Amino acid sequence: MNSANLFKPLPDAFDSEVFDTLLSRPGLRIERIVSHGQSSPSGFWYQQSEGEWVLLVKGEAELGFEDGAAVKLGPGQHIDLPPGCKHRVNWTSPDEPTVWLAVFYPP
Amino acid sequence: MNSANLFKPLPDAFDSEVFDTLLSRPGLRIERIVSHGQSSPSGFWYQQSEGEWVLLVKGEAELGFEDGAAVKLGPGQHIDLPPGCKHRVNWTSPDEPTVWLAVFYPP
Repeated sequence: MNSANLFKPLPDAFDSEVFDTLLSRPGLRIERIVSHGQSSPSGFWYQQSEGEWVLLVKGEAELGFEDGAAVKLGPGQHIDLPPGCKHRVNWTSPDEPTVWLAVFYPP
Repeated sequence: MNSANLFKPLPDAFDSEVFDTLLSRPGLRIERIVSHGQSSPSGFWYQQSEGEWVLLVKGEAELGFEDGAAVKLGPGQHIDLPPGCKHRVNWTSPDEPTVWLAVFYPP
């Protein structure tokens, strides 16, 4: 059985976020996302037909929502973004890599 | 949007492992499992029709497989257990809680 580690190696995400698919099965995709200070462009919204359950594994971030709500995430914090939910990344820590686990599931 | 934290509160798993469903959708179930020194009984095997992708978030553990292979897991280590894969928990750290994230998906 093959195992791998989320943190080793940890890609350098200083120039841009790095996305890696860890598992892909019918109706399921698990990604590691590494950020380092990035945020969504002003006025940009993610809005996908899939649902996305997100766990912040390491680092710090803030998500923003269409109604103006903001959710600060630290290690261990998780949130479900239902299919169609408009969201953006308001902020990720510039001081360290932020590692996200994202589980995408069908509408 | 509601978020929650894997570590707060962390249930006391000293007497027995604690299983919590974090997300349940058609064809997908995400669980947090907290262990504290437990291992599978001698001769016992987990064998489920679902696939299970496992991330060890915190602590230390060892999984065992039918062919005698053993995989040591520390923080950030992840492994995919395909549908039907016989496996057992050989060991979890007696010194601290071990927190697993398990993503179950259809055969």
